[in-house]
Amino acid sequence: MLGALYILAITVEGMSGALAAGRRNMDPVGVIFIACCTAIGGGSVRDVLIGNYPLVWVANPLFLIIIITAAMLTIYISRWMRYLRRAFLILDGIGLMTFTVIGVQKTLALGHSWFIAALMGVFTGVFGGIIRDVMCNRVPLVFRAELYASIAFAAAWLYIGLLQTDLPSWISVVITIVLGFSFRYAAIVREWELPRFYYRHNSWH
Amino acid sequence: MLGALYILAITVEGMSGALAAGRRNMDPVGVIFIACCTAIGGGSVRDVLIGNYPLVWVANPLFLIIIITAAMLTIYISRWMRYLRRAFLILDGIGLMTFTVIGVQKTLALGHSWFIAALMGVFTGVFGGIIRDVMCNRVPLVFRAELYASIAFAAAWLYIGLLQTDLPSWISVVITIVLGFSFRYAAIVREWELPRFYYRHNSWH
Amino acid sequence: MLGALYILAITVEGMSGALAAGRRNMDPVGVIFIACCTAIGGGSVRDVLIGNYPLVWVANPLFLIIIITAAMLTIYISRWMRYLRRAFLILDGIGLMTFTVIGVQKTLALGHSWFIAALMGVFTGVFGGIIRDVMCNRVPLVFRAELYASIAFAAAWLYIGLLQTDLPSWISVVITIVLGFSFRYAAIVREWELPRFYYRHNSWH
Repeated sequence: MLGALYILAITVEGMSGALAAGRRNMDPVGVIFIACCTAIGGGSVRDVLIGNYPLVWVANPLFLIIIITAAMLTIYISRWMRYLRRAFLILDGIGLMTFTVIGVQKTLALGHSWFIAALMGVFTGVFGGIIRDVMCNRVPLVFRAELYASIAFAAAWLYIGLLQTDLPSWISVVITIVLGFSFRYAAIVREWELPRFYYRHNSWH
Repeated sequence: MLGALYILAITVEGMSGALAAGRRNMDPVGVIFIACCTAIGGGSVRDVLIGNYPLVWVANPLFLIIIITAAMLTIYISRWMRYLRRAFLILDGIGLMTFTVIGVQKTLALGHSWFIAALMGVFTGVFGGIIRDVMCNRVPLVFRAELYASIAFAAAWLYIGLLQTDLPSWISVVITIVLGFSFRYAAIVREWELPRFYYRHNSWH
Repeated sequence: MLGALYILAITVEGMSGALAAGRRNMDPVGVIFIACCTAIGGGSVRDVLIGNYPLVWVANPLFLIIIITAAMLTIYISRWMRYLRRAFLILDGIGLMTFTVIGVQKTLALGHSWFIAALMGVFTGVFGGIIRDVMCNRVPLVFRAELYASIAFAAAWLYIGLLQTDLPSWISVVITIVLGFSFRYAAIVREWELPRFYYRHNSWH
């Protein structure tokens, strides 16, 4: 099940990257590149930071083929994309939770602490989008808008907590994804946001 | 031969980085830094992604000295640079092919698949320029203009194909570099470009 | 002593990151993220480049808690920050030297050459700020203004030189930090800068 959700997640993130590339008028090279960075950048950053080789897509390039296909398709269906806004927000929320759970699992499996596992769950979920935004020359969205990384962090801790119970492992996954996604969906619909920090002075550095 | 071409390639890429730094009015620290990132960033990203330690320039810092020298020289000869435009485009094309061949070789030597080897060939050729552009706060050129990464990708597959034949290894290298470079040169002269993807709507993410 | 200085350094760098995030109107997620990247990004880049696993903060997440606390505090005390400009420049200078010494130590301990050790000392000191600036969508400050990386580089060589003498190790550290900091402080007060490189033509690449 997590495998199927992972493929859904990289597809959605890849399409998000392709659209961001389209907003910068990139050619197919840029579209594919940004799509791949968005979809697998989070997991790659996680694995490089904890030294977990080989990277998933290096061992299994099929994932890249899926992302590249999704990216090219996005170019052709982009004109209808705005009508699919809600569907994509939902899929993106499920993808975020999937990435988070996978990130936590992989990090715990290497024997790291709960805190690092929760952090790596968040990294898996959000770092692809950060790389996408940096390569598209804009301030990463995840730092400015909506509840996104914070929900991933809470979901990661929920999942770690559930793993300490006697629940079957797949039930812990389902609970985390359903609850995390519901919270994320509520945050979108009700436009929950964290207060922003405004600082105006030129700094000492 | 590949060793000499590699030194040519890092020199040219280093100079490209130094000029990009000059366009942002950087001081010598920035010039050297951007030059080094441009010249060895691609190979470093490749080696970090496939866990191939130690990195080339860590084991052999002489390459850094070459790049730093090229960067400092670029500051002094920059006023004549515009007259050398064509010469540099040629050297840059040769450098791109050299990086691609080296990237494929190193990745295959570690036992990775052809697809990953071709991808790492492209990464070796283009990721230095991506880092240069991100650090200079602009959308990477390679995502928007000309045939560049796509030619590197085609050349990588050509080289992998030639490696399956009975040709002596150095002949495969020569064929790849000559053909790849010719195609790149034609792309510049005839201004071949891939169609761009335009997307205007604010997205679901 | 170096341990206490390290905690001072990550606190100051974290606060610098938090203020940069505030200038981009980020929410607490962005503030914490940028603060952590600024404070531990330099050491992480160093350790990834030389393959030195596990990363410091992965093995010891307490450092992250310190940075996160400093970042959140910065939001509340930011209104007084401009009055503390000089104090922060001093602490930042001490932090830069501390990072440099630690970077040299760790790299030498892995058996790398003096040149690479000096370079990694500089990376430890400045790469956090580079990541901060790239994520905040501006050209890294360290490439454009003041003597900063150059002083770190000189201090790294001074420290490597002192290590070859019979001086007790802690005295080498103290001399490096005191001299390097004094030079950095003089550079701020007297506004020493390196000449900038201006290049105006569209380039061959």
